[in-house]
Amino acid sequence: MIHHFTPTHYHTAIGPYAPVLTVDDGDTITTTTVDARGFDHRREQITPRGNPQTGPFFVRGAEPGDTLVVQLDDIRPNRTYGWSGSSVAPNVVDPGYVKELPEAPLTEWYVDVDARTAQIVAPASKLGELTIPIEPMLGCFGVAPPRKQAISTATSGEYGGNMDYRGFVSGTTVYFPVFEPGALLFVGDGHAAQGCGEIVGTGIEISMDVTVTVRVLKGKTIGWPRGENKDCIFTVGCARPLDQCVQHATTEMLKWLQTDYGLDALGASMLLGQCVRYDLGNIFDPAFAMVCRLEKKVMGGRG
Amino acid sequence: MIHHFTPTHYHTAIGPYAPVLTVDDGDTITTTTVDARGFDHRREQITPRGNPQTGPFFVRGAEPGDTLVVQLDDIRPNRTYGWSGSSVAPNVVDPGYVKELPEAPLTEWYVDVDARTAQIVAPASKLGELTIPIEPMLGCFGVAPPRKQAISTATSGEYGGNMDYRGFVSGTTVYFPVFEPGALLFVGDGHAAQGCGEIVGTGIEISMDVTVTVRVLKGKTIGWPRGENKDCIFTVGCARPLDQCVQHATTEMLKWLQTDYGLDALGASMLLGQCVRYDLGNIFDPAFAMVCRLEKKVMGGRG
Amino acid sequence: MIHHFTPTHYHTAIGPYAPVLTVDDGDTITTTTVDARGFDHRREQITPRGNPQTGPFFVRGAEPGDTLVVQLDDIRPNRTYGWSGSSVAPNVVDPGYVKELPEAPLTEWYVDVDARTAQIVAPASKLGELTIPIEPMLGCFGVAPPRKQAISTATSGEYGGNMDYRGFVSGTTVYFPVFEPGALLFVGDGHAAQGCGEIVGTGIEISMDVTVTVRVLKGKTIGWPRGENKDCIFTVGCARPLDQCVQHATTEMLKWLQTDYGLDALGASMLLGQCVRYDLGNIFDPAFAMVCRLEKKVMGGRG
Amino acid sequence: MIHHFTPTHYHTAIGPYAPVLTVDDGDTITTTTVDARGFDHRREQITPRGNPQTGPFFVRGAEPGDTLVVQLDDIRPNRTYGWSGSSVAPNVVDPGYVKELPEAPLTEWYVDVDARTAQIVAPASKLGELTIPIEPMLGCFGVAPPRKQAISTATSGEYGGNMDYRGFVSGTTVYFPVFEPGALLFVGDGHAAQGCGEIVGTGIEISMDVTVTVRVLKGKTIGWPRGENKDCIFTVGCARPLDQCVQHATTEMLKWLQTDYGLDALGASMLLGQCVRYDLGNIFDPAFAMVCRLEKKVMGGRG
Repeated sequence: MIHHFTPTHYHTAIGPYAPVLTVDDGDTITTTTVDARGFDHRREQITPRGNPQTGPFFVRGAEPGDTLVVQLDDIRPNRTYGWSGSSVAPNVVDPGYVKELPEAPLTEWYVDVDARTAQIVAPASKLGELTIPIEPMLGCFGVAPPRKQAISTATSGEYGGNMDYRGFVSGTTVYFPVFEPGALLFVGDGHAAQGCGEIVGTGIEISMDVTVTVRVLKGKTIGWPRGENKDCIFTVGCARPLDQCVQHATTEMLKWLQTDYGLDALGASMLLGQCVRYDLGNIFDPAFAMVCRLEKKVMGGRG
Repeated sequence: MIHHFTPTHYHTAIGPYAPVLTVDDGDTITTTTVDARGFDHRREQITPRGNPQTGPFFVRGAEPGDTLVVQLDDIRPNRTYGWSGSSVAPNVVDPGYVKELPEAPLTEWYVDVDARTAQIVAPASKLGELTIPIEPMLGCFGVAPPRKQAISTATSGEYGGNMDYRGFVSGTTVYFPVFEPGALLFVGDGHAAQGCGEIVGTGIEISMDVTVTVRVLKGKTIGWPRGENKDCIFTVGCARPLDQCVQHATTEMLKWLQTDYGLDALGASMLLGQCVRYDLGNIFDPAFAMVCRLEKKVMGGRG
Repeated sequence: MIHHFTPTHYHTAIGPYAPVLTVDDGDTITTTTVDARGFDHRREQITPRGNPQTGPFFVRGAEPGDTLVVQLDDIRPNRTYGWSGSSVAPNVVDPGYVKELPEAPLTEWYVDVDARTAQIVAPASKLGELTIPIEPMLGCFGVAPPRKQAISTATSGEYGGNMDYRGFVSGTTVYFPVFEPGALLFVGDGHAAQGCGEIVGTGIEISMDVTVTVRVLKGKTIGWPRGENKDCIFTVGCARPLDQCVQHATTEMLKWLQTDYGLDALGASMLLGQCVRYDLGNIFDPAFAMVCRLEKKVMGGRG
Repeated sequence: MIHHFTPTHYHTAIGPYAPVLTVDDGDTITTTTVDARGFDHRREQITPRGNPQTGPFFVRGAEPGDTLVVQLDDIRPNRTYGWSGSSVAPNVVDPGYVKELPEAPLTEWYVDVDARTAQIVAPASKLGELTIPIEPMLGCFGVAPPRKQAISTATSGEYGGNMDYRGFVSGTTVYFPVFEPGALLFVGDGHAAQGCGEIVGTGIEISMDVTVTVRVLKGKTIGWPRGENKDCIFTVGCARPLDQCVQHATTEMLKWLQTDYGLDALGASMLLGQCVRYDLGNIFDPAFAMVCRLEKKVMGGRG
């Protein structure tokens, strides 16, 4: 079944809030998200800033200990106006170089969804004109965290949240551990494009039309968000410093390869050892994110 | 001029040692390297283990404050026997998962240079047969460090060293800051292939035939190793934790874009913000390595 | 006014929950806390484990942007049974040493409040008998966090929480930033004693009789918990890695010295430079804690 | 035997250099050190800056695998002029606060050795007059590192070096692992006083009269510097981030308690768990330092 849902309010924390819609295992939800400052498709601010989330959606049958599958069917900007930070964040450069960073207002972008490009509006630096390809993604989405917590959409954890990973594009399937009955899915914080690390503190922030299909894996328990696209499988670790993100994501991948791909600890180690890839999600938010990724073509048809 | 150099001894530290050969700006050197344990193309141990280095090569005209350009013309395994670690290193997984890591002997690989593949010999895990493409690279190479230091080939720094980045393949050009007269170039620690992060502590370790061409950029001063291939430019930051690697590499890239690509601080920030990529060199050695990378196609013909 | 409050339920997250008692600026609250596993003074489990908190207490007049002063009048164990972890946590030793750590059940302690000692019950290691002085403290306490968050009592932040700092003993005054009307004070997780860093994951965990006096500093805004005793002033930074804790705590101290002690940035730097002390709160919880401390005797009567 | 040694040259790296003096097990050496910028007791610069070291001293009988004992008999400033950095270092504050740090020249101090005080000369901030007690210490000292390395006196490692720990005062005994025949002891970088962390990048830098007595523990192998004074034993871990310093120092202490104090792994864990203290050596140098410390009074006469 396909649900068309129009949000009337938003959350800037991810927690055990009252569901806005209840759906069944296998259903599809088509909805919209505002941008990180609460502006909608008409470029009007309709809710306070801070990665406002649409949802939560209650998925029937999802219970703590299960896994929620979220298929990102379509993530599509629904306006042409995008904006981004302009200066690299102080924590991303050498401490002694911070005083050299520019002070600058936000950058405005013109996003052409059909052409799949974004272009700087009114260039004000020596960079001048810049047009780049877009790869629309969700920066912040996930499920209610464990222990009845309600956690700011500025950060992330085992439940997802503000992972700011540029791989969360249309066509990707994401797996979340379920901590609350119904899982309670939130979606928001769309980026038309984003560099690795989100080093200026934002992607090209934009409101979105979002379509996702949800499924429940009963009795399947995972530790961290996982993902899959046609080429790769991946795991996401959120923490500080980046080293700990790598630890979380690698541990989760080692477990996944053993439970679902027929490997033992030694085989999983050997495969990752020479074939693993890591992506930097973000190095800006309170929790950073690193992704441990494996190309399906090295997996010899396993799984 | 092309020099064919056959090493007679090796170094397990990178320092201001007596040059084994003096070459001119623009010369090419063809030589060999042993593997990380000191085994040569006949699979005989001819020097103690520890990433033994061939060199140093004295480049006429290189003085402190200059930049040494090292073009990796050809990095080619000169035997079929490769070996690798088998278990993910304890520092790469959650501390609480360390006790689950397998204890296992080294893995042996059959490397077919013509087919460009490596295959596990005598598979002993549930992984079974595994054949992967090779991308021969140098794990450890660089120039004499500042301040007359002699630093173990286990680690890395502004002078290069054991960066263990899988991007150092044939066709890549590398730039090092010069700290000693003649720069004193060392090369060694070849890997037929390596996963991101070198998380089992090794790539597929192998002896190599190495051909490099060196040039000197007089009066050009850089802070960290830089590199370039047909698609990208990149900078390398070496430190712990990974966050600090990102700081070093990003700061170096911001400087490079301003001095050589006609950008101001703001333009460099805006370009990196939405377009930067990061690669994880290694998360195993005493100093980790992260690479800040930018595709040339987004640079609009600058530089 | 003195309030005697007997808790009937507990919280394992710190958030904007319904107050259990409303008090005035200047009032004193005498209450009890259960231990980290929910056991009370009779050694009976009355609530689920996880640093259960007594409260929250609503302090009239406290508004976002104010500071809540919490004077720890008396923190006193109300039973003789204490328990602790027995093995150093895996993240506190070298990753390669984790496999050497002992697996062991909890250690039981006999706590003699009058003698101010704790003694291991039924010693089972070569350590044999051990009696140590107690310094009863609160491991986890604080106020409702910003942005309507409800955050697990396993971790800590600007609002306090599970800081696990051995300096929070009777006679210490603590300052918290206020984020919710009434501040919403929580107290719990008593330790009869604790080593620096809480490296076995616990102190000597015990239920407590707790007496605190609260005051409101109207219009006084601070960034992180601060504290004071007869000898020192201190600030607390909570994060990972420890480096970032030091950054938070030092920044907060620099600000404090400038706003309240008549120093400029240069004077504050010079004073801290040669006189500052740092204490390790904990290196075990999701957020670690470091304390930046300055002895009053070097402050020459300022403030 | 007592050797009176007057240095004629200095080293700014610690490595396998030619010894300046050979001494026997049990001998005492009285010598002098210049300050971090190479200025001597007359306040004349006699060697380039960079923590110049006096030595190395060859200790007969010391072989790799042994331990060198260095008793700090007397560390005494030999002039009245001291200097220090004035601003907290950028890496010690929040990245977003770096732009608030003052730019300031070095601070000059008048050091009165008899009164055991240091006083700011010509106060130029709102701090005004400041007189603090001195605790003269060595910032940088150690033995030749492993693998024939020569490592800058800016940093530190298993061999000691620039640990910048304020506990290295007269009356302390220090233990170093021996990596080279004769151990090759270096001493330098005296501080009249220093705050924890060396957060302005220096202590009160000064030239010193230094007297040490050396002994060799044959066949005793240790992993990191250890120390002892009348009240405590301690271990030093050098690395980044601070978390890794804690790992090194705690692992070394767990080993020490088991080999020399009759404890098993469980007993050592339990003792440290409730009794350990940590000191922050430095959070400024390329390698930070943390100290794991245990008071002798909790050790019940063991060892």
